[in-house]
Amino acid sequence: MDQTPTDTKAQHPSPEENAPKVDLRRVRSNPDFWYPVAWSKDLKPGKTIGTRYAAHPIALVRPEEGSVFALEDRCAHRQVPLSKGKVTGHAVQCCYHGWAYGRSGRCIDVPYLGKGKLPNGVKTYPCREQDGLIFIFPGDPEKADTTPLPPRLARVGDPAYKTRSFGQEVGCHYSFMHENLMDMNHQFMHMKQMGQMRPRFLGQKREPGLIEARYSFARTSGKQPIGEALIFGERRDSSEKFQHRDVMTIRTEYPYQTLRIQTGEEDPVMDLWIVYVPQDEAELTNRTFGLLSVKRPKVPGVLELAWPFLVAFTERIFAEDREIVELEQKAWRELGGDHNVEVFPVINALRGLLAECGIPPAPAKNA
Amino acid sequence: MDQTPTDTKAQHPSPEENAPKVDLRRVRSNPDFWYPVAWSKDLKPGKTIGTRYAAHPIALVRPEEGSVFALEDRCAHRQVPLSKGKVTGHAVQCCYHGWAYGRSGRCIDVPYLGKGKLPNGVKTYPCREQDGLIFIFPGDPEKADTTPLPPRLARVGDPAYKTRSFGQEVGCHYSFMHENLMDMNHQFMHMKQMGQMRPRFLGQKREPGLIEARYSFARTSGKQPIGEALIFGERRDSSEKFQHRDVMTIRTEYPYQTLRIQTGEEDPVMDLWIVYVPQDEAELTNRTFGLLSVKRPKVPGVLELAWPFLVAFTERIFAEDREIVELEQKAWRELGGDHNVEVFPVINALRGLLAECGIPPAPAKNA
Amino acid sequence: MDQTPTDTKAQHPSPEENAPKVDLRRVRSNPDFWYPVAWSKDLKPGKTIGTRYAAHPIALVRPEEGSVFALEDRCAHRQVPLSKGKVTGHAVQCCYHGWAYGRSGRCIDVPYLGKGKLPNGVKTYPCREQDGLIFIFPGDPEKADTTPLPPRLARVGDPAYKTRSFGQEVGCHYSFMHENLMDMNHQFMHMKQMGQMRPRFLGQKREPGLIEARYSFARTSGKQPIGEALIFGERRDSSEKFQHRDVMTIRTEYPYQTLRIQTGEEDPVMDLWIVYVPQDEAELTNRTFGLLSVKRPKVPGVLELAWPFLVAFTERIFAEDREIVELEQKAWRELGGDHNVEVFPVINALRGLLAECGIPPAPAKNA
Repeated sequence: MDQTPTDTKAQHPSPEENAPKVDLRRVRSNPDFWYPVAWSKDLKPGKTIGTRYAAHPIALVRPEEGSVFALEDRCAHRQVPLSKGKVTGHAVQCCYHGWAYGRSGRCIDVPYLGKGKLPNGVKTYPCREQDGLIFIFPGDPEKADTTPLPPRLARVGDPAYKTRSFGQEVGCHYSFMHENLMDMNHQFMHMKQMGQMRPRFLGQKREPGLIEARYSFARTSGKQPIGEALIFGERRDSSEKFQHRDVMTIRTEYPYQTLRIQTGEEDPVMDLWIVYVPQDEAELTNRTFGLLSVKRPKVPGVLELAWPFLVAFTERIFAEDREIVELEQKAWRELGGDHNVEVFPVINALRGLLAECGIPPAPAKNA
Repeated sequence: MDQTPTDTKAQHPSPEENAPKVDLRRVRSNPDFWYPVAWSKDLKPGKTIGTRYAAHPIALVRPEEGSVFALEDRCAHRQVPLSKGKVTGHAVQCCYHGWAYGRSGRCIDVPYLGKGKLPNGVKTYPCREQDGLIFIFPGDPEKADTTPLPPRLARVGDPAYKTRSFGQEVGCHYSFMHENLMDMNHQFMHMKQMGQMRPRFLGQKREPGLIEARYSFARTSGKQPIGEALIFGERRDSSEKFQHRDVMTIRTEYPYQTLRIQTGEEDPVMDLWIVYVPQDEAELTNRTFGLLSVKRPKVPGVLELAWPFLVAFTERIFAEDREIVELEQKAWRELGGDHNVEVFPVINALRGLLAECGIPPAPAKNA
Repeated sequence: MDQTPTDTKAQHPSPEENAPKVDLRRVRSNPDFWYPVAWSKDLKPGKTIGTRYAAHPIALVRPEEGSVFALEDRCAHRQVPLSKGKVTGHAVQCCYHGWAYGRSGRCIDVPYLGKGKLPNGVKTYPCREQDGLIFIFPGDPEKADTTPLPPRLARVGDPAYKTRSFGQEVGCHYSFMHENLMDMNHQFMHMKQMGQMRPRFLGQKREPGLIEARYSFARTSGKQPIGEALIFGERRDSSEKFQHRDVMTIRTEYPYQTLRIQTGEEDPVMDLWIVYVPQDEAELTNRTFGLLSVKRPKVPGVLELAWPFLVAFTERIFAEDREIVELEQKAWRELGGDHNVEVFPVINALRGLLAECGIPPAPAKNA
């Protein structure tokens, strides 16, 4: 399915030929996948925290001993958050009247009620922990075991890399996030941070549940920013030898997204894993969980010293992206629907993928 | 109707057997009662203030001489608040174009219009003042005279007691407030403030418009907090002699609520009177008016000295209650209705009472 | 159509005889007029800013050379604001992927797409600049050329006057603004700022698209404020010679409003031009653009010295007006419609004019 590498300029798409028929911003995320809902470091032993997937409140409980478990975050009694409660042994006790629930979700104690009459418990979610993230499986629990977690998140745990975790709430549908990252022509927006670069589209790949875009870049003017130099481990000016040398590969492997920068056959200099978890019922806000791994340069300690610059650089880039996707969402609200005129084939392919893999809106709402 | 005193643990209710058929949080308060809408001290002679009952704006006017009166808080002319106006003699003059209204609500002057052509006036409310509170009667005015005000609010005016007035807006339906106070099993939530106590349910009483619950308490561990010691006039440890000695009686006498703590036949050591006045049209917020009377200990001046501690103690308790009832209301909104699974019979009886005494939702809205 | 001058008190209108049948607060402004949307000083050469008319986002673009032009403030690609973009020559380039648009609204470049395949562009608005304001014509562009701009805004550019520009967003339908200014009986509200004045209504004039009210004033007590003295160029006490000497003429010449104060046949001592531009779709907020010209007194420099006092005085007056019209709008929302009982004929005439000149609500919404 590979296309011949070409400058994106050379492509003459018929706009919208691949555009999905439904309004992509009304397509809900497919719950039959593993979604991260919290950072491991934010949940200490013997504690509970509240989180959310598409308006479903979730209490994560980490007993003093044993693995994390996930319950619906509403006490069966009066629906207040269990995540405000107290972890006692392998159970969590509601803060209000002390009802207690175990890992199975069953109510195991009401302090003022006989054991024979205990009411029903609460819903549970399959829950796993990997690479510093706590994942839940919000869909059909029977599918959880056969649905793999991503084998590796960026390069967490690889000593050849240093990894940064980041994320925040962004006020837009998750699809805007995927499109933002995959359409590298938007580096126009980051010109102040990155200098003038011209992307060249090298081709796309499509497989079931997957779409991939590859680019190279030429610096047309401006100095390379220090944050970027750190990623490449060397200063690169706009001289010929650096033009179109590195390949950036961006992939949406539903529902996750990755971006890798590679020079030839070497290990990537940068490896990003990112996912956008819907927060509200309409899925018009998302919480981003990102892991950014940067290859350590040969001189030890350089990356540690430079890390604050790299953090600040990526924060500035991400702030610009956040502003623009929230403006896109705002326009969608004001216009009452999607009016995009997409001309870039790989983005239209991506839109098709997100529409196919997600849950289409109910017909009534669509009308 | 008294039940045999038992430990609440011994009770085996069928959950929901007494649950009201309507969604209790959609039941509107019955307007044919006297509701406090302001503290007397907040309305000086010659002034007017604006207040509210269930989205009805009310201007309270206190002339330099004579009693307070209550008008609809919208000028007949352009509907701006009369409570922004100026009290002149026994009338209030709208701040915008100077239209004036007397105690009867009649428009008695439009500065630029002949007296013969004066437009209609505004609605009035029966209005009374007692024990430092200004009450109005929002329902059928013909019922006001035959509907008694509570004969006594806590122990206001009794020299054997010191009384604290308190209150604030709380973001929930008034029914959550009644249930919170009456279900003493929720002292679990105040463990940090109060230490570990085990309530014993002694019985309930039901009469038309009234439900009463009685409890005793045993301290299972922890020290008695100073605020509580002040109320009892003595330090009480967890030794046998103090267990289950005091009786707490909580009563909803529609629409008011009281809580008294008594040792044997003595006068109560604490006497609380409280009411939750709906603020918005859906009645999903309320303004609380509370009077808390504490019996003066034999040594004079002790209570005055200790008062700040008692105030701080009750404020902390009230802040915890406020947080939890607002979380209940939030869950109700998110779930689109009441999903409570109530297992405690006296609370189900209370729910029944509140549903019967209130105004059920219109069928259309209920559907 | 002039009426005999009379004290407004002498008038005995049947309330509502002229009241419009539609709810005036649902009447939308007529877009077939020139509306100011920005101050000239806020748009520097080579820059673009975003503004709004009745929820229509507008990008104003001022190239380094040549006149301002106005585009729909949404890129054709992904609908993000063009006003976040970059002005290059005579075009504006979208900040996101660099699509460029010229004065005609046509898309003239997509950096990564062949010229032959350029997508359609964006809507434009006729745009003019006069007296420090940038106007657009939001309605039928074919009517723009034959619809005159106001010939003169207050006395901008007249050396005999000093002019202040002011404005802000006000949370109400524009009709409340017109009524506020034209009903001078509302000076009752400004008593603290202005002292006690009694207005006398001298008469009204009605022509197509125009209504005018004339008043004189008598100071009944209190001292003249300094801000007012500055406008008249002399101190005026409540003695007989100053009573009813000056004539205030307030005119709504759809959609603009003016207020002039004149003594006999002399040039006005004050000349105000003001317009209220709807901001949201329901037109329940407006942005005010005002120009207030004050005649320079004979002694040079006095007005400059006194200017800060005059500014503070008018700000206080405007703050009072703003508060009251926002309270009117709030009452309208709470009551779900207009309940005004208007008794003043000129205001009923004004309401009729605004209803006739505006766009009535669609029947469905009105039902």
